[in-house]
Amino acid sequence: MSTTTENPVITHLRGALDGPWGAVREEARALLADEKFAGDPTLDHKAARARVLEQMREITKLGIADRNFRRENGGTGEPGAAVVGLEMLAYADLSLWVKSGVQWGLFGGAVENLGTERHREYVRRLITLDLLGCFAMTETGHGSDVQSLETTATYDPATQEFVVHSPTPSARKDYIGGAAEHASMAAVFAQLITGGESRGVHCFLVPIRDSDGNDLPGVTTSDDGLKGGLPGVDNGRIVFDQVRIPRENLLNRYADVAPDGAYTSEIENPSRRFFTTLGTLVRGRISVGGAAAAGARVALSIAVKYAVQRKQFSDPDTGEEVVLMDYRAHQRRLFPLIAKSYALAFAQNDLVRRMHLIQTGQDLDASSQRALEKRAAGLKVAQTRHATRAIQECREACGGAGYLTENRLVTLKADTDVFTTFEGDNVVLTQLVAKELLTAYADEVRDLDALGWVRFVATTAGDVVRKRSGVRQLIQTLRDRGDDAVDEGDLSRRSTQLALFADREDYLVRTAAHRLRARAQETGPFEAFNNAQDHILTAGTAHIDRLILETFIEGIADIEDPDARTLAETVCDLFVFSTLEENADWYIMHRFMSVERAKAVRRGVNELVDRLRPDALTLVDAMGVPDSMLRAALLSDASVYDRSR
Amino acid sequence: MSTTTENPVITHLRGALDGPWGAVREEARALLADEKFAGDPTLDHKAARARVLEQMREITKLGIADRNFRRENGGTGEPGAAVVGLEMLAYADLSLWVKSGVQWGLFGGAVENLGTERHREYVRRLITLDLLGCFAMTETGHGSDVQSLETTATYDPATQEFVVHSPTPSARKDYIGGAAEHASMAAVFAQLITGGESRGVHCFLVPIRDSDGNDLPGVTTSDDGLKGGLPGVDNGRIVFDQVRIPRENLLNRYADVAPDGAYTSEIENPSRRFFTTLGTLVRGRISVGGAAAAGARVALSIAVKYAVQRKQFSDPDTGEEVVLMDYRAHQRRLFPLIAKSYALAFAQNDLVRRMHLIQTGQDLDASSQRALEKRAAGLKVAQTRHATRAIQECREACGGAGYLTENRLVTLKADTDVFTTFEGDNVVLTQLVAKELLTAYADEVRDLDALGWVRFVATTAGDVVRKRSGVRQLIQTLRDRGDDAVDEGDLSRRSTQLALFADREDYLVRTAAHRLRARAQETGPFEAFNNAQDHILTAGTAHIDRLILETFIEGIADIEDPDARTLAETVCDLFVFSTLEENADWYIMHRFMSVERAKAVRRGVNELVDRLRPDALTLVDAMGVPDSMLRAALLSDASVYDRSR
Repeated sequence: MSTTTENPVITHLRGALDGPWGAVREEARALLADEKFAGDPTLDHKAARARVLEQMREITKLGIADRNFRRENGGTGEPGAAVVGLEMLAYADLSLWVKSGVQWGLFGGAVENLGTERHREYVRRLITLDLLGCFAMTETGHGSDVQSLETTATYDPATQEFVVHSPTPSARKDYIGGAAEHASMAAVFAQLITGGESRGVHCFLVPIRDSDGNDLPGVTTSDDGLKGGLPGVDNGRIVFDQVRIPRENLLNRYADVAPDGAYTSEIENPSRRFFTTLGTLVRGRISVGGAAAAGARVALSIAVKYAVQRKQFSDPDTGEEVVLMDYRAHQRRLFPLIAKSYALAFAQNDLVRRMHLIQTGQDLDASSQRALEKRAAGLKVAQTRHATRAIQECREACGGAGYLTENRLVTLKADTDVFTTFEGDNVVLTQLVAKELLTAYADEVRDLDALGWVRFVATTAGDVVRKRSGVRQLIQTLRDRGDDAVDEGDLSRRSTQLALFADREDYLVRTAAHRLRARAQETGPFEAFNNAQDHILTAGTAHIDRLILETFIEGIADIEDPDARTLAETVCDLFVFSTLEENADWYIMHRFMSVERAKAVRRGVNELVDRLRPDALTLVDAMGVPDSMLRAALLSDASVYDRSR
Repeated sequence: MSTTTENPVITHLRGALDGPWGAVREEARALLADEKFAGDPTLDHKAARARVLEQMREITKLGIADRNFRRENGGTGEPGAAVVGLEMLAYADLSLWVKSGVQWGLFGGAVENLGTERHREYVRRLITLDLLGCFAMTETGHGSDVQSLETTATYDPATQEFVVHSPTPSARKDYIGGAAEHASMAAVFAQLITGGESRGVHCFLVPIRDSDGNDLPGVTTSDDGLKGGLPGVDNGRIVFDQVRIPRENLLNRYADVAPDGAYTSEIENPSRRFFTTLGTLVRGRISVGGAAAAGARVALSIAVKYAVQRKQFSDPDTGEEVVLMDYRAHQRRLFPLIAKSYALAFAQNDLVRRMHLIQTGQDLDASSQRALEKRAAGLKVAQTRHATRAIQECREACGGAGYLTENRLVTLKADTDVFTTFEGDNVVLTQLVAKELLTAYADEVRDLDALGWVRFVATTAGDVVRKRSGVRQLIQTLRDRGDDAVDEGDLSRRSTQLALFADREDYLVRTAAHRLRARAQETGPFEAFNNAQDHILTAGTAHIDRLILETFIEGIADIEDPDARTLAETVCDLFVFSTLEENADWYIMHRFMSVERAKAVRRGVNELVDRLRPDALTLVDAMGVPDSMLRAALLSDASVYDRSR
């Protein structure tokens, strides 16, 4: 994307934001700008689904799918490059990203990671799309609470088969991408029953359609029909009526059933087994966050490029019309969102790097996987929340033009809207992050039910000690520096900023634990939890904010070009100041900030957006969405949208 | 809608929320629940447009259109009932509401209110849909800044015609409902030029299509195509190439051109003439706010009815699954939005009543019209902002089910999304409200350009004295009571609450004026304005909040049933507490609230949502969206969405 005439600051900043898999991103920018990968919003959902499937067949030729899988399964074994490569599809079209993610990420990931040698052939076939699959976890009755899924897979030793069955109306598999039309096989999550005993949720490969696309006996699929967005994804429902599958279709990496029905597992505790199973699927959650952030970058690129040319109202002194980007209100709308996008880009790169090290065997620390899961959950929340807010703001900032489909913002909005829900509802995931903080990763807690950990916190835990594993030296040094006299610290110093973020997290986690302990005796754990739920969620959010700031600081340190680094520093300041401004009430109420300091924060935001104004285009160009992939008529047809005399 | 078995609290509350035109609402509930008025999201936009037009023909049979027009024009002359009656269409389908509003509200309103006797026949024909029209104000280059429209209407005395022309690409009329397909005539806003002199923006009737639907000579219409929502509205573009229309097609209520080209107007100042013209069209803005609030009520009804039955995760003590509405986080998501919906319903009823009194000649006070315009602008902002936020929250609160079109929330979201933009962008309107406050309605200010008023504030105005016209005795009494010792006042007392809202507004307006004065000398008016823009917008918002609280209090005072009144009082408390919570940082930073009080506010919100929990269904039933109009599959098919064993 870089050309000889490009401002070197843009090139350097983009390099930093692109992160460790920059080459993958550059390659994708060149390959995916082709019209054939773009979404076509004029198609009805039937045609859109067919188009996306066709696009996926093109994608397989580019090697983007192969990276997701290990060499022994026919892939190239590059998990980091795999996630980044798929993420780039989001610039082209989010339906294409979702359907590719379902096939290679969710379905493929389940078969590769939960299966064993005997399932290897399926992986080979799904990479090339010879086998189209779907990931049938969610049921109409249970989405967030996956441990309570109702579908059963009962082992019959007489025939050495599992009988897959939907015992109630709410056991219906629902919202399953691929189930409405294209998938011929489903990775079905169901309660495994053998010898009359339930062994918890396991994953099974269940053929659902024949080669003509007809439902197989006992399988009834149906179509979820129209959705808010993602027209190219064929979400649907599956009901099983005593469907028999061979014993070997159990994905048996963590547990197996012998021909006689004997159940064995290397992990004895059923709940831990379940969480280990889910943990291997962490890549899905990482990918959703990345794609949401990519969608926000596209929207911000469109809104800023429009705002620097669109004029409205005249300066009474000069009589000249003023461009939108020169209005303070418009700057305050868009620049803090750009700053957050920068912050999240660094956080996502760091997250993918951690995942890559673990999944390629370079990080063997036992605690790393669990820390990764927590971080992935937290960043999924932050990035999808950001996308929902940023894209909405961009739509409104482009006025009536923003509402036309030809300007893409409404499609981005509609397509990303469900991201706050899928791969884990944001409220539930924030709670999960907070739970991990409150129990300081105590191993036994993982095995408790959804809310059982509250009792643990209330009765068992001593003072909560937050582990800060994996912190690089830079952050440690800054922290040590910030330890004394935060109240007096210079707000422009990173050490002070970091201390303000970390203190908020510490305080919230500590007091939440205290509240749970104090109340649980009186009211029982559920009441105690519920009364503190808001507090607990805030603690989770504060933790995520702190992680994001740390990776932002680390990311900047790696920028060599001094001009690019200086600009990134200003953007980081704006991220810090606008986050502090959003939480000003909390900081003052808890005496971490004086009223005077809070006022300084507000002034600081204004000064920073002023300072960044001349760099508006540089900042969005560095985000790295090629102009050729923006596909917004208001940019290509600027003369019409602006007074042209 | 009330039945013999209905809880009387619901009946009484609904009566209060229904307001002065409750009978119109009741009638509409019965008539519009018919399937034939519902939206059909499975239609493509061509078919959706045809369906809506057909629905409008049915609507004319119900007398809903007639109320919009004066008796001498063939209507029944009931402006209040007209706005309320149209608003009820929003429960059925927002495309139907918009297209009806364009025909009878905008186009019809322009012809009736800006035209004279010679245009009467057009009104008769547009009521019955014999004449389909559109309202061609916005251009691609200018939306918010209507005074700078580029389309020209140049008088040619030789033929006694106006020549309507689009001189630049950006002069193209755009986003015009009806322009893409159905309208045969446009009310075109254009710069009137006669004798070589420009006289500012006036409105002209321009035939654009023949009876076969073909563009007339010199007219080029085109289709805006797909939009974020509102598929049933045929938005389009119009370009004029020297189109000739008779002199009589000038809507000449406020200005006329004689056959020889002489220009006359009863209003000498061109800017004041323009604002008087716009002022007669206030009904459009009032209607948009009402429809947005109606959309939010539909969404909240769906989300709450789902939340009281949908279960997820078990209480560890009992093992029973917990309904969503019992979670604190869910209560905090939905109840404050319900409270705001209540507040806005009372505010809208009050607004419509004021409009009705003015437009039926019962309120002849010269200042009332201008106060009405300000209030309409403010409530349009508050209601459309609320709708955007509430519908988004409801979608997310219903999880994956919320994303399916069959559950309606995504349609509500997509359809209302542009409401923050049309009939005045919310940022621009908030600024307009603030401008009126800052200049204390000084008459000369209205005639200044968009930002010229800043110079007025900076150089002319003395201390700003806020006029509080039209305040009823109840509010005055409460205010007098609250005047002393606000800081010590009991937060549960209305007088204290009102004082907190009013003090915030007063302080913000006063300090904004001070800032403009202090800075304008140094930097010039634009810089002064721009530096304070955020402050100015906050002042506008604070004003709107205060008005909403006042009408809420007045509305409650009219509820006779003690149980219904008590419940409404609790809802009002929640509106107050959650508004204070949102602005807690401001209150503390400006010493209007101690840290302790701010903490009490936060606790208060929690206590109030707890207290309202048992009345969740009562509260949404009282909002008055009949179950038969909700049309969300997740409510009709509850057994599937909930664990049913």
